Order: sequence, then C-alpha cells, then structure tokens
Amino acid sequence: MGDIREYVTGIARAAKKASATLRTLSAEAKNAALASMAAAIDERRAAVIEANARDLEKGRRAGLSKPVLDRLALTDARIDGLVASLSEIAAFEDPVGEVLGVRRPAGFVLEKVRTPIGVVAMIYESRPNVTVDAAALCLKSGNAAILRGGSEAFESSMALVGAIRAGLAAAGIDGDAVQYVERTDYEAIDLLVTQTGLVDLVIPRGGEALIRRVVEKATVPVIKHYKGVCHLYVDESADLAMAAGVVANSKVQRPATCNALETLLVHEAVAAEFLPMAKAAMPTVELRGDEKSRAILPGIAEASEEDWYAEYLDLVLAVKVVADLPEAVAHIERYGSSHTDGIIARDAAAIERFVAAVDSAVVMVNASTRLSDGGVFGLGAEIGISTDKLHARGPMGLRELTTYKWVVRGNGDLRR
Amino acid sequence: MGDIREYVTGIARAAKKASATLRTLSAEAKNAALASMAAAIDERRAAVIEANARDLEKGRRAGLSKPVLDRLALTDARIDGLVASLSEIAAFEDPVGEVLGVRRPAGFVLEKVRTPIGVVAMIYESRPNVTVDAAALCLKSGNAAILRGGSEAFESSMALVGAIRAGLAAAGIDGDAVQYVERTDYEAIDLLVTQTGLVDLVIPRGGEALIRRVVEKATVPVIKHYKGVCHLYVDESADLAMAAGVVANSKVQRPATCNALETLLVHEAVAAEFLPMAKAAMPTVELRGDEKSRAILPGIAEASEEDWYAEYLDLVLAVKVVADLPEAVAHIERYGSSHTDGIIARDAAAIERFVAAVDSAVVMVNASTRLSDGGVFGLGAEIGISTDKLHARGPMGLRELTTYKWVVRGNGDLRR
Repeated sequence: MGDIREYVTGIARAAKKASATLRTLSAEAKNAALASMAAAIDERRAAVIEANARDLEKGRRAGLSKPVLDRLALTDARIDGLVASLSEIAAFEDPVGEVLGVRRPAGFVLEKVRTPIGVVAMIYESRPNVTVDAAALCLKSGNAAILRGGSEAFESSMALVGAIRAGLAAAGIDGDAVQYVERTDYEAIDLLVTQTGLVDLVIPRGGEALIRRVVEKATVPVIKHYKGVCHLYVDESADLAMAAGVVANSKVQRPATCNALETLLVHEAVAAEFLPMAKAAMPTVELRGDEKSRAILPGIAEASEEDWYAEYLDLVLAVKVVADLPEAVAHIERYGSSHTDGIIARDAAAIERFVAAVDSAVVMVNASTRLSDGGVFGLGAEIGISTDKLHARGPMGLRELTTYKWVVRGNGDLRR
Repeated sequence: MGDIREYVTGIARAAKKASATLRTLSAEAKNAALASMAAAIDERRAAVIEANARDLEKGRRAGLSKPVLDRLALTDARIDGLVASLSEIAAFEDPVGEVLGVRRPAGFVLEKVRTPIGVVAMIYESRPNVTVDAAALCLKSGNAAILRGGSEAFESSMALVGAIRAGLAAAGIDGDAVQYVERTDYEAIDLLVTQTGLVDLVIPRGGEALIRRVVEKATVPVIKHYKGVCHLYVDESADLAMAAGVVANSKVQRPATCNALETLLVHEAVAAEFLPMAKAAMPTVELRGDEKSRAILPGIAEASEEDWYAEYLDLVLAVKVVADLPEAVAHIERYGSSHTDGIIARDAAAIERFVAAVDSAVVMVNASTRLSDGGVFGLGAEIGISTDKLHARGPMGLRELTTYKWVVRGNGDLRR
C-alpha cells in the first residue's frame, strides 16, 4: 500500500495548500472561476459525452440495471443542466466573511466570522452531476474539494474534472482546488478519511455499507445520513382528505429518494375511515400492514419486523395503527432514522407535543416529507443531508460548508 | 469483554432514555434540578471530602506530583466553589427552544429551532470539578451526560456523582440524566465512543495520547483539541511596549493552560529592539531561540525543530525572528495547532492580512492569548475548546452543546 498511501497523502497536501488561497478569495474571483468552469465544460462537451459513452458501455456489459444506467447517462440536455447549475451556484450569496456576531465582553471587541472549513472530501456513488455540483459548492464556499465518485462513472467524472481544472486554471486559480481520486478501490477511501490535519471534513453519500465503512475508518470528522426511514403520523384530529394527499405525495412523488415516506402511522380512532382513503390515493403502492390495519384493509400483505426498519426506496409502504400519539412517537424513536418525520393534525396541542418529542432533523407538520430538501428550504443548493446532530442537521447547503473563527480586537488587553 | 460491553451499552441506553425526557424539560425544571444538585453536594460535603482524602492518599502513594495533587484536592472552599458554579449555570439563559430563524421559502413556514444534542459523553482526566461542571452544563442544555473521569479522582467523582444523582432524584428527574462510568480501563472508553445511535457526541479532555486514542476508536462524532501551540507575531508596526506586555501576559499568567503562549515570532526590523524588552518583561521565562534571535540575545538556548512543535505548558518560550508577515503565517500554518494565534501591530493592512490568512479557532489582535476562553468570551461556562472546524470552534459553552431541528408548518403542502 506504499505508493497509494503517498498518492492519497499527496492529494491531501495539495488540497490543503490550495485551501490557503481559496480562503482569501473574493466572491468575484470565485464567481469568475465558476463561470470559467462552466465555459470549459461547455467547450469539452463532446469529449465528456464520449467518456460517458465508455462508462455506459462498460455498465451495460457489467449488467447494470436500466435505472442505474439512466442516472449515469450524460446527454446534451444534462450537460446544459450542469452548466446552468454552475451559474446558479455563482448567483448564491458568498457565505464567507459574514459576521455572525460582534460583542464586547470586556475591553476588547469579539467578532465571530464565517470562514471556509478548509479541505472537504466527498465520497459518492454513480451520478456524474455530483462531481460538478460538489466541486462548485466547495469552491463557492472557499473550500478545496477532494472528490471520489463511483467506479461506474469513472470516465465521465475524470472528463468533467479535467474540464473543471482547466476552467480553474484559466481563471488563475490553483487547479488543486478540485482534485479527483483516480483510484476505485476501498484502500484509497480508507486512506483519504484518515488524513487528520489535512482533510477537515468527509461527506459520504451513497449506500449504507459505504457510509458505515467510512465512519468506521475515519479519524477526520464525517457528516452523513445512513438512510431515510421517514414516517407520517395521522392524528385523530387530522383533516383526512389533506392527510391522504400528503401521504400519497410523500410516497409516490419520487419514491427512490431518502425523504420519501416509508412508514404510515394512523391513530386507531380514524384508521377505519382513513386507511381506505389512503389506499385509494396511491393505487400503485403496495401496502404492508400490522394486524389492525389488515383488519381494515384485508387485501394487504402482513408487515414483518424488518418492514418497520425498511427504507424501500420503492412503491411500498409499511402501515401501522397506533393507539395514540405517544405510541407513534415511540415507534419513530425505535425504528426511525432521525431524517424526516411528520404529523398530520388539526389539534394544536397534539402538533406541539409531536414537534417537541420527535428527535428528527426535520419535523413536518401537515406537509409532505418530500419537502425536506435544501433547494425547497431555500438553502441554495444541497451538498448532502445530515442525520447527525453535530454541525449540520437536515439538508446541507453552502453555509453548512463553512465554519467560523473568533477574532479578538484589543488594545494591549491582558488576562488578569 | 462480554460483561463490560453490556455494562457500557446499558449506560448508553439509559442515557438515551433519559435524554428523551430532558429534551422537553422547561428552563424552570432544569434550574430547580441544578439547585437541588447544589444542595445535595453541600449536604454530603463531609463524605465528598472523605472520598477525596482517599484519592489523595492513593495519589501520594503512587507518587503523583504536588501540582497534580493540588489540582485533585477538594477543600471546603473548593466545594463552596462547586456549589456556586451550579448557581451560576442555573442563572445562564436556557439555550433550548431558541428560534434561530423563521422563513417562508414556499407556502409553508420553515423554523430552525435550537434543541439539545441528546447524549454527551465526557472523557477527562483528574480534576473533580469537571465532574460537576460537565454534569451541570449538560443538564442545563437538555443533554444526558455520561462521565468518565480520571482514575486519580475516582473516589471523589463517585461521591460527587452520587450527590448529583440524589439531587436529580429529589427534583423528580431521572437520575440517569447523569451517569458515571465506574471503570478505569481503556476498554470502557473504547466501547463508549462506539455507541452509535445511543451516544451523540464525545468530548475528550486531557493529554494528547488520550484524545488520539478516542479519535482513533470513535464512530460517534468527537469534538476536541489535541493541544494548544499558541503563537504571537510582533509586526514591524507594533507598539513594542504593548507587545512586551501582551507577550509576557500570554506566557506567564498561567503557563500550564492550553491558551498560554508557546512561540514568539518577531519581525526582523524590530527584533533587535524588541527581544531585549520581551526578555526583561518575563525574567522567569527560559527562552529558546533561532540563530537570529540568539544573535540578539546571546545568552539564550538554541531552539531545535521539536521546540517549534512544543506545547511547553511551562515557563519556556520558543523565539524566532521572521523576515515578514507571510513567513510568520507560514510558520504558524506549519507548526501551530489552530488553537489561538495572534498579531501585535498598528498597521491596519497587516492586521487584516494576518486575520484572513491565519486559520486558527481564535485570532488575537493586540491581545493576550490567555483571553481565548469561554468565560472571558461571555459564552457562559466552558465545557471544552475545539480546534476542529465542525460544529464548534474555539471555546465551547452551553450553546455549543446544542443542535437544531427544522420544523416545517404546512397546510397540506406537497412537492410538485
């Protein structure tokens, strides 16, 4: 592992060096670099599509499923999308330098100022657009980016990173502001996440196995979510027509996402009326119920213990009838993933009890779980979702890629 | 390791259970519990001092140094101090429930609300007052605390925790809000820091070896600082009399602390004038210099490469003459610990260049490094100092023991 160790440490060192410059760049310089990156991707469009064709061909031979190949494909329209997203990111306000607070606790002035984190490593799977978005969000927030995408998208990502680095160089910025780990093995990841003192943050995105491995190995701080087992609880006070609409939207609008609904909890006082309404609102969804819900909807399958933990990412929904709000909260506490959980209710007291008791990153009140999203929240763009409690919780945007420093401005002030 | 695994997991489970109640406690209830804890410690004063006498006796037999024994000792006056600190913590504003922002990015209302982190594990060495402060700060911020103090203070900490838990019980609060790991081996720590899903945060405080071990083993997020190698750079534009005062205060006011000065960097244009002034301002300090500073102060020892990395925690100071501000910044980047570093200067441009370029948790301008402190900063009380860039940076107070949740209040809002 000698030379791979050197290779990864070399990348981390170069990133740290680049980050010292990025830290002091003006918003104008960063936006010019983003424009230059966009121009370079536009210019190399044909080469990117060619590289992507090689990935697709390899993927087809490897027997990747059609949805995976679809996500992997870069068309002209998708490259237009990547170019447009760079302009969007340039238009966001620069988070760096924002003064978060000024106080005068003693003689001196104490400022808390927003700064870049430094070096951010992104480890992700398959979709090549993540390569561009992650590079751009890191640059805009003044961070050096180390990217390590999925092996299925290797050629595409390399072509995109080549364009990005050419764009950076054209804008007079150290190309090492964005680097790509050209190794598809796990050893490279294990080494990357232990670069204490060089890498400041690791964001893994992808399957639970990848994320658990990163967490096990890392000595550098990690922000992640393992999975999204999202719940909605329909209270006895709910507007049932609204509830059916919100539940159906949460489940079917895009079932493969981490904020899609996975388990429906229904108060027993309204279950007999509500469950048939819910079923009718999402006829394509396979329901798996507990005994009480199967008594109301006899046709549905039986939910096993595993169903309560399941992140289906598909048109399947677990359903349980609960005796009251505390039982719903206890179920979410036990089986949930602290991602996004909600209540449908009219009773204000029930709503506040639920909001206070449910310890999730996002708590929805009479709203679709699918709204749990950085873009929808107006955070700018989303670089990931955190179910951790440290630093960032829920959708992470540009600000969540920053930290702060304290600046003390004195006049010879001493400690007595 | 079978039964110790069960023991530690049992503690973590009990803490998580207690945290669900703590999360919803009012400020009044928490303050009443703090008062009750204070009363219980006051009441059991004799037993605490007796337990401490056993620790001291054991420490003397084990050959602990006088300063360590001094820090370990609990006198009547020190117990008064512990009781008083509980009242002080009760007087701080409750951070939980603070609304950090309200927006309406679409039809719904989006709130960002401050919440407790959940379960905080504190791993620390020797001083028994940390046991009381950590328990109180965690309780005030709505977190369950798992404490694991140094083996030298075992009996004292156990007596204090016994009083704390009796105080909690008298106030009607689950005693498991504050637990103490009654195992002095490292295995207990290794298990504690891998309780993913039960423990939310680990704060190690103590020697670098302990902290490195925690970081290596942990799968739970960790906030820490390894050490404090603090620098002051005396610019050519500095008021040299002020500089001598600030440097001396930073070094000698309390040299054994992590925010004490360890390396002095002096611009070569003022070195010949300043270094003798600095030496005169702190006659008890042993200076270790580079070649240029030894040419000015011929009597001082030669600094080796290790001196630039050293956290002396003693009346020793490394001294280096630099050609300019960028050399000072580069030295700090290379040898520093990102804790607290400062500049003494009158030139506003030089100050701003230094502030922007130095990537430390706290940057001092014309002020003593010893002012880098949660109490001095008005953060309330200090539970630790972070040189990480995630979540909390620099001194950590009550607010840094909190996270936030997003609450979406809709009216049947869907994702389109």
